[in-house]
Amino acid sequence: MEKKRTMLSYCPTIKVVDATIRDGGLCNDFFFEDTFLRALYETNVAAGVDYMEFGYKADKDIFDVEKFGKWKFCNDDDIRSIVGDNQTDLKISCMADVGRCNYKRDFRKKSDSPIDLYRIATYINTIPAAIAMAEHAKNLGYEATVNIMAISNAKERDIDMALELLGQSAVDGVYIVDSYGSIYPEDLRRLAVKYIEMGEKYHKFIGIHAHNNQQLAFANTIEATALGVDYLDATMSGMGRGAGNCAMELLIGFLKNPKYSVAPILKFIQQYMDPLKQKGVKWGFSVPYALTGLLNRHPGAAIDFTKQDRADYENFYHELLEKF
Amino acid sequence: MEKKRTMLSYCPTIKVVDATIRDGGLCNDFFFEDTFLRALYETNVAAGVDYMEFGYKADKDIFDVEKFGKWKFCNDDDIRSIVGDNQTDLKISCMADVGRCNYKRDFRKKSDSPIDLYRIATYINTIPAAIAMAEHAKNLGYEATVNIMAISNAKERDIDMALELLGQSAVDGVYIVDSYGSIYPEDLRRLAVKYIEMGEKYHKFIGIHAHNNQQLAFANTIEATALGVDYLDATMSGMGRGAGNCAMELLIGFLKNPKYSVAPILKFIQQYMDPLKQKGVKWGFSVPYALTGLLNRHPGAAIDFTKQDRADYENFYHELLEKF
Repeated sequence: MEKKRTMLSYCPTIKVVDATIRDGGLCNDFFFEDTFLRALYETNVAAGVDYMEFGYKADKDIFDVEKFGKWKFCNDDDIRSIVGDNQTDLKISCMADVGRCNYKRDFRKKSDSPIDLYRIATYINTIPAAIAMAEHAKNLGYEATVNIMAISNAKERDIDMALELLGQSAVDGVYIVDSYGSIYPEDLRRLAVKYIEMGEKYHKFIGIHAHNNQQLAFANTIEATALGVDYLDATMSGMGRGAGNCAMELLIGFLKNPKYSVAPILKFIQQYMDPLKQKGVKWGFSVPYALTGLLNRHPGAAIDFTKQDRADYENFYHELLEKF
Repeated sequence: MEKKRTMLSYCPTIKVVDATIRDGGLCNDFFFEDTFLRALYETNVAAGVDYMEFGYKADKDIFDVEKFGKWKFCNDDDIRSIVGDNQTDLKISCMADVGRCNYKRDFRKKSDSPIDLYRIATYINTIPAAIAMAEHAKNLGYEATVNIMAISNAKERDIDMALELLGQSAVDGVYIVDSYGSIYPEDLRRLAVKYIEMGEKYHKFIGIHAHNNQQLAFANTIEATALGVDYLDATMSGMGRGAGNCAMELLIGFLKNPKYSVAPILKFIQQYMDPLKQKGVKWGFSVPYALTGLLNRHPGAAIDFTKQDRADYENFYHELLEKF
């Protein structure tokens, strides 16, 4: 593995994607205040963040709009109420799940929308559907990525085939997604090299979205960066499902491009993220998430364990092992 | 850098050192209950941990015995009251700081002591004094290491000279110590290779003691392991000064030697570590520690910030920058 970038240099192709609302929304059913959104938007602009993801484009026929905050659905008008015409360098992103988004109905023409980038989230077995969605977005004028989730559970041969299909598609980029927080840096580098080889062959950028179950989200993100992965997901205070994500404050502190500034992020954490934690919204590293990460499982069982205020970690570990 | 070990194999030369009392003692002035010590000892035995460090051998002429718990001084009799004759495979370690330990008075003959290993903590500018202490311990029959602290602040040339002196000494092992939690995996690997080259030349083992300021303690520890670093420090729930250390529950989960077992550690965390946190003993990752790590500073300022219950991270960042 050739090291592409040195720690003291910077690479202008690196883009930081703030996924606080989208992945963090999984912790509070997307019930964020508008003041939170506006402050986050201004923080991202001031910090030099490249993309801000506003949430999911979920299908309102599948999900009850009364049960979730509006950012699960990401109406263009709701985004506009925060960003106006978005006369900034910060681009707007939105995630759409294969099978949970009526994209033919809900994606508008890019010229009518504040959204710049659609990120299509898929498991390895629905790559063709993801490509169809991404290419639909491309045809409407958007940038588009396909984010292959739960890659730690996929077979090597399936990953190779998925990457070949994605390489030949119209997508702009492909993401490595460590949904379970179970990938160690050694494996991550191997995966990154595989994705990057495809990206170089087909002119796609590669991204990474890491989870912090084993306190490896930041480490994996910067290791991938050194090898040539360009799109880096992070969230304020690492807010995200279960153990959360790569912390924006760590990532922006690490990156050497002088356009990035950590100070606005520190202020936002004090003013908005700490209060969110104090209000009882839960995320971040803890033993049950470490165990689902260690055993390469969906964090769902650990989320339940945490919600039930259980602390019998040893029993939980044995329960997980029995379900192997 | 050649990768020496694969993730699915295991290497019998790897030794796990539990530093919960010693580094964790910096969070509570070493006031641990005897029940805590006994349970930790039994947990380490059951989990297959190789060494348990009981604390410091601090000089009672320098430190007031009334102001600290007994594990700052690690009397042999106090250790014996926990371990008896220690008829187990778990070895006992004790740390001694250069300049803060009257070693000629306080190190007894190995045959009279439950201690197996003395670890001498030193800054790069007192290596000869550290070697004198370590060789004194060796002459008394102990194993001995020298742990070079704050290595992120040392000059390359000084590290090379220190390693050469240590190579030619009688010490058994030399530790990489990332006191400030400021070393990224890329740098850590480079350092590890340097230490390992010395170790191979002079038949010394290499150890690592990492701090978690930037959530890299576990990542750096396992990256070092893959390259051939053998002695791995960890603490229960990552308890240790400031942002704490590599979490034992993560490390034992990762290692593949079947003698290690994570279940006893999970039970200990529930029964002893969670209550310690609930009682208000503070450690672990937070923004101020991330900032001292990022700026390669001693965590002292962040410890003060935390003790004062401050949350104005941005001001703190600017204060740190002004003191550059």
